[in-house]
Amino acid sequence: MTEFRRRRVGIDVGGTKCLGVVVDESGVATEFARVPTPRSPEGLIGTLAAMVEGVGEIESVGVGVPGLVHLDGSIKASPNLFDVRDLPVRTLLSERLGREVHVENDATCAAIAEWRSGAARGWSDVVMVALGTGIGGGIIANGRVVRGTNGFGGEIGHMVVDPDGPECPCGLRGCWERFASGSALAARARAVVSEGRGERMLSLAGDVASLRGEHVESAARAGDVEAQRIIDDFCRWVALGLANLANILDPALIVIGGGLASTGDSYIAGIRAWFARMLYAPDLRPHPPVELAHHGELAGAIGAAHLPTLESDVGHRSE
Amino acid sequence: MTEFRRRRVGIDVGGTKCLGVVVDESGVATEFARVPTPRSPEGLIGTLAAMVEGVGEIESVGVGVPGLVHLDGSIKASPNLFDVRDLPVRTLLSERLGREVHVENDATCAAIAEWRSGAARGWSDVVMVALGTGIGGGIIANGRVVRGTNGFGGEIGHMVVDPDGPECPCGLRGCWERFASGSALAARARAVVSEGRGERMLSLAGDVASLRGEHVESAARAGDVEAQRIIDDFCRWVALGLANLANILDPALIVIGGGLASTGDSYIAGIRAWFARMLYAPDLRPHPPVELAHHGELAGAIGAAHLPTLESDVGHRSE
Repeated sequence: MTEFRRRRVGIDVGGTKCLGVVVDESGVATEFARVPTPRSPEGLIGTLAAMVEGVGEIESVGVGVPGLVHLDGSIKASPNLFDVRDLPVRTLLSERLGREVHVENDATCAAIAEWRSGAARGWSDVVMVALGTGIGGGIIANGRVVRGTNGFGGEIGHMVVDPDGPECPCGLRGCWERFASGSALAARARAVVSEGRGERMLSLAGDVASLRGEHVESAARAGDVEAQRIIDDFCRWVALGLANLANILDPALIVIGGGLASTGDSYIAGIRAWFARMLYAPDLRPHPPVELAHHGELAGAIGAAHLPTLESDVGHRSE
Repeated sequence: MTEFRRRRVGIDVGGTKCLGVVVDESGVATEFARVPTPRSPEGLIGTLAAMVEGVGEIESVGVGVPGLVHLDGSIKASPNLFDVRDLPVRTLLSERLGREVHVENDATCAAIAEWRSGAARGWSDVVMVALGTGIGGGIIANGRVVRGTNGFGGEIGHMVVDPDGPECPCGLRGCWERFASGSALAARARAVVSEGRGERMLSLAGDVASLRGEHVESAARAGDVEAQRIIDDFCRWVALGLANLANILDPALIVIGGGLASTGDSYIAGIRAWFARMLYAPDLRPHPPVELAHHGELAGAIGAAHLPTLESDVGHRSE
């Protein structure tokens, strides 16, 4: 009975799919579910409730959602989800289920998963970088999740690394994710092909609009110099942001997750080489290892399942 | 007797001077000392010991030093001090005095002072930025100092914000302190004057080599358009780094200290205006206030005096 009650549900809400897991008391994911993400708030809450109700008796519910997530468990905005402003996911789902629900940013959930049972297990100071369509982040410092005063910490993708760089949908120029995300890699490759170079990438993709990171990787592995140059430049930009974060936070290690981590072998050596050159005072300090995430696409859901086990951090004046 | 024993000594070691304070049990600095900084390790330890021994019976000793400071209280390197590598300040001073000594990075000490008894009093999530010759930083998250795994956290001045920017002595290009420090401001003004513009700044300074931030400020206040433009551009660069840090850490507020804070009235309005435009998702969140430090040049010493009262954070695997 005790074991039964320790089953924790974690759900990771993505732009296209919701991934659910049940995690047992040793932290291992034992059940999985995958459901398309509804395109409305009502649909989303209904789907999340159904996913939870479908797994029987459980100890707790945690949900990871993309976007700016307030400490109160509401989504302030989420460009990759649907047009949502101030959606109180925690309150709505909690009322619907009649039980407490924990809600957190998805990249922070992924960081928690890697910290609790993955690549960063046991370390007190960790930076997790999720390289996907954009760049998400999660930070652990002094053995606690750094949520910030509102819960908005970890928006590392909008760190400006070149104020004259390309425009970002956020309204600024030169945000890190304009250079170092999966969409940035694909955009760079499409630009090269549009200039009449990179024939191998083009032939792999079929047409310019279909060109993705996987085609750049394949072309680079086959020896295409243009593709290799694009990947090296991409690795340099990733490393630049990692070095900035390492200089600010001095983590014991950095974990790279997100969609790009699934083909991380194509990038990790390049990222590590550039990172070693870009860290401040590289001769005077141990370099934090840069490791690929262990939990793959389940990281967000597993981390969400861990949410109720964390110390509660509420942003407030401490005295 | 109890009150007497609660006197804590804090010393801030700067490039040119060591500032010492005695802080009483309510956190108020009651005694002050100012001594030139010796140019050798032996001289430095001797001077620090003499400063401590000169104040009678005390409860504790804390020292803030510039540069990369390890958790073990040794200076790994300190470009603004003297040619020092691996100087075990804590061990040497502790042996000399026959008592425990706490040693920390000077900007982190300043952050602690502002957090414990200054502009950031009572907040759990704080970023302090010290704008001087370079840029130092101190971070508080979840009510604890973020030292990082080695103690090297807070090296925010070497966050790269333009990889094609000017060379930094650290070996990289476009570090934030190349745009947003006092020396960057002066360098920009000298460049403008060298191009034959900014006559008023030149006449205030006498010659190009003597041109400092204070001349730019004076010229700007007198209506000089070139000087006003330099200051506006400087404020934009300061704000860019503050926005990056706010996006990463979501602090309750940001404190600006360092030498430039002493004439902060010339900059703070410009920094705030740019910051409000550069924060990610500015319409969806409270903006952290940007405030000037309260403790002025004593912040480092007062914070050093507080060091023994903090929770001890040792970078290690937590399990």
